[in-house]
Amino acid sequence: MTVIIVSTRNKEKLREIKSILGKTIALISLDKIQNAPKIKETGKTYKANALKKARTIFKKTGLPTFAEDSGLEVRALKGRPGIYSARYAGPNADSKLNNIKLLKALEGVPLKRRQALYRCVAVFIAKDGGIKITEGICKGTIALTPKGEKGFGYDPLFIPDGYNKTFGELAERIKNRISHRAKAIRKLRF
Amino acid sequence: MTVIIVSTRNKEKLREIKSILGKTIALISLDKIQNAPKIKETGKTYKANALKKARTIFKKTGLPTFAEDSGLEVRALKGRPGIYSARYAGPNADSKLNNIKLLKALEGVPLKRRQALYRCVAVFIAKDGGIKITEGICKGTIALTPKGEKGFGYDPLFIPDGYNKTFGELAERIKNRISHRAKAIRKLRF
Repeated sequence: MTVIIVSTRNKEKLREIKSILGKTIALISLDKIQNAPKIKETGKTYKANALKKARTIFKKTGLPTFAEDSGLEVRALKGRPGIYSARYAGPNADSKLNNIKLLKALEGVPLKRRQALYRCVAVFIAKDGGIKITEGICKGTIALTPKGEKGFGYDPLFIPDGYNKTFGELAERIKNRISHRAKAIRKLRF
Repeated sequence: MTVIIVSTRNKEKLREIKSILGKTIALISLDKIQNAPKIKETGKTYKANALKKARTIFKKTGLPTFAEDSGLEVRALKGRPGIYSARYAGPNADSKLNNIKLLKALEGVPLKRRQALYRCVAVFIAKDGGIKITEGICKGTIALTPKGEKGFGYDPLFIPDGYNKTFGELAERIKNRISHRAKAIRKLRF
């Protein structure tokens, strides 16, 4: 988190400065780019996948590019599903099927042995081609049943340490303060 | 404006990334700082005033500090009120009195000879003490009568070039795209 003191007592000026600064970064997703290449996540690590995505898009657009790859690592499953988190239940799996498969794999495992962590590797390629790579992790426990409709992926099953609700239940602003993705992005210091 | 491509087609991820990035800068005004010194704008230039404000607050807080000084320069008045814009009608003047004084000073001057410009000098002192100074200007015309309730200062009288409404009438998002302050802040490239 970058903190900046705005040296004014003028409320109208402050409001205006906040509004202007809030718009100094425009984020554009791949949907908005004509003929954006489809990138297969075939790397063996999060870093390889995130780098591949970022490099491909940077090469195509020449614009500063952000990419990330992330996954859920469950200790009782020796770190699986890991980089295969999005297609754990098969190449066309959705979050629901992935969640069902994970619960099945952990059947009979008590809560105290369901430790897991979410990991995110973020890559930023600046205009000059300089590459920055950061990692964020968020530790937690896999719930016995899915709870909550918020978030995505394994969020209905993931109870972050220090809370007794899943990411599916917790307010977005809480998730976005403590999540693996939030930590990785903050470290990039755009 | 910084444009960043987010290399994902996942709408939920994009939403989350936008939300996280939107919070990577926290702006704190002087009101929130205990015993923040009162700074007199006694400099002879915008730059001197903005630098004085930024340096004083940076020295006190040790935190990255933003400051700006700005004013309205009217060609028919040889650049006045300029750095005295906020206290044009006297040391305790408010915007209303300043606007009245400006209209009086331009009495009888036709619209085509009421050219003016808003100028803003912005200063940013980074954590390591490095100083960046930028300037933004916005050209326009002084209206014959005040119009609109938006903005502040001389906004009800300032018609930016290319528009036929005053800053007091134009939507905030338009002002914050074309204004002197927007231009100076964007150049700082936080």
